[in-house]
Amino acid sequence: MDFSQQYLEYKSQIDDYLARFINESKPDTLYKPVRYVLAGGGKRIRPLLVMLSCEAVGGSAKESLHAGAAMEILHNFTLVHDDIMDNADARRGRSTVHTRWDTNVAILSGDALLALAYRALLRTKSPRIQEISKVFTEGVVIVCEGQAYDKEFESRKRVRVEDYLLMIQKKTAAMVSVSTQIGGLIGNAKEGELAALKNYGEMVGRAFQIQDDLLDVVADEKKFGKTIGGDLVEGKKTFLLLEALKRARGKDKAKLLGVMRNGGVARKDIGRFRRIYEQTGAIDAARKQVEHDIRSAREQLVQLRDSDGRSMLGWLAEMLMHRTF
Amino acid sequence: MDFSQQYLEYKSQIDDYLARFINESKPDTLYKPVRYVLAGGGKRIRPLLVMLSCEAVGGSAKESLHAGAAMEILHNFTLVHDDIMDNADARRGRSTVHTRWDTNVAILSGDALLALAYRALLRTKSPRIQEISKVFTEGVVIVCEGQAYDKEFESRKRVRVEDYLLMIQKKTAAMVSVSTQIGGLIGNAKEGELAALKNYGEMVGRAFQIQDDLLDVVADEKKFGKTIGGDLVEGKKTFLLLEALKRARGKDKAKLLGVMRNGGVARKDIGRFRRIYEQTGAIDAARKQVEHDIRSAREQLVQLRDSDGRSMLGWLAEMLMHRTF
Repeated sequence: MDFSQQYLEYKSQIDDYLARFINESKPDTLYKPVRYVLAGGGKRIRPLLVMLSCEAVGGSAKESLHAGAAMEILHNFTLVHDDIMDNADARRGRSTVHTRWDTNVAILSGDALLALAYRALLRTKSPRIQEISKVFTEGVVIVCEGQAYDKEFESRKRVRVEDYLLMIQKKTAAMVSVSTQIGGLIGNAKEGELAALKNYGEMVGRAFQIQDDLLDVVADEKKFGKTIGGDLVEGKKTFLLLEALKRARGKDKAKLLGVMRNGGVARKDIGRFRRIYEQTGAIDAARKQVEHDIRSAREQLVQLRDSDGRSMLGWLAEMLMHRTF
Repeated sequence: MDFSQQYLEYKSQIDDYLARFINESKPDTLYKPVRYVLAGGGKRIRPLLVMLSCEAVGGSAKESLHAGAAMEILHNFTLVHDDIMDNADARRGRSTVHTRWDTNVAILSGDALLALAYRALLRTKSPRIQEISKVFTEGVVIVCEGQAYDKEFESRKRVRVEDYLLMIQKKTAAMVSVSTQIGGLIGNAKEGELAALKNYGEMVGRAFQIQDDLLDVVADEKKFGKTIGGDLVEGKKTFLLLEALKRARGKDKAKLLGVMRNGGVARKDIGRFRRIYEQTGAIDAARKQVEHDIRSAREQLVQLRDSDGRSMLGWLAEMLMHRTF
């Protein structure tokens, strides 16, 4: 089976679904930004995880398409509101909603996206729909908690690696794990299968975020599509910064503490900090954490039945680890 | 049966439910504002409507308490986000969330409130939970549409009475009608009963909003608890302003058009505009509209079985019409 081909097939099913999803057009100030966001592309990883998880417990991908779309719409809701809070001007090469329209429009179209995510989810035909909706809802609460921690960290002087891991577990990993759990529930997973899918999702999600932090420092700029060192310039408390801070001594430690306090590094100093990350072993630690999480995630898959869905979940975990995008 | 007493009893059940509802406390920046909002009081009319509607089709109020709380939390979500968009500093005598904290905190705690509303709703035990969740979700979408229209109207030069009625149907009446429908669904209403509850809710909701517009101009300041003429000062396109504009000629018409264009009236001119509202017959038209809607709402109740719930729905409609609060 050609997994890359299969991925493109599922991705286009999601893109089609989202393109047809909104029938309303009035009021313009609500539905223009909603359509704009849903047409904005993206890797559609979360819907893919829903569909593969459903298959990996014996369900069909088709019956999980509504829930897959729901996860993607939910993801886009978080992006629209996070972009307001982070003052971000651009995403995926396009203006953010609050930049193209205004903050009020972005708040309101974000709200509508959250409701529309439930609309898609509730089209799912499953005797377990209440359980599915509960998992989805608790995921939304957890994502809000994760974002609140993320914003708190910006002004906090002391953030430990453990705090960071809790934050990304809530802000990033939970949505991945909700995707795999919901896919499993639609496929009527047994308890053991469901636990395996949940764990797989959490570990893949965490690895994905730490890999993102790594790519900001070590990626090939052309392939990655965004400028290297952006996290350092913003003074973001990433896994690398916190891990390097834990390990550094003397002058390096003072420099890192400076970044924590002053909130940012000049562009010309990015190379210097990359070297500190290398020399303290923070980069190695991040790589090891990603490898460990991906291995643990794949180990969970033995709980599932031998199926194309399961094989492709294994492939996807590897691909996310080796991604350069 | 003493309906006022019964109302206070149900209200205190809701207040208790909301006080116990949030077990989480961290992160502070999320749960402090969430608790603050839920402890902020209010008339708890929407939960009351859920509980009474459930009883009026043969269900018990107790089984609809989760959904009642969900409607109140949902209502509070809309208030937190609307207050950001409207730049409102105070609500029910307390600072709004974005004033007491900041806009980011208000966006995020609003988002969490919406998810928490679903958490409460999904605790409902009902074979019709999917239908209930769909009605709730479509209500959220409609409220977003209503708010988008409301914001659009602020900068639109031409708004007709019909546009205004569509806006309040979406922004205010839909939530009232969702409350009565969901109560009916939990009580396992038959199709005819459900339609009657839906219609009752829409008409009561519309009357409630027009009454609110009226009270801004004619209420007793002390009883109403807020300053008279606030809508005029803000230049809000209310039922009264649009109805008066339709009816006025000559100098009065020019004055009203001035309010539409310049967005507001000086405090000292409020009395003058109140007289225009009276002389054009706009106030009478608003009163007639409210009376008509309340009468129609009550007529719907004959579709329901004779019960305390039904009687109290009739009482509630009257009370809302004669309210001075």
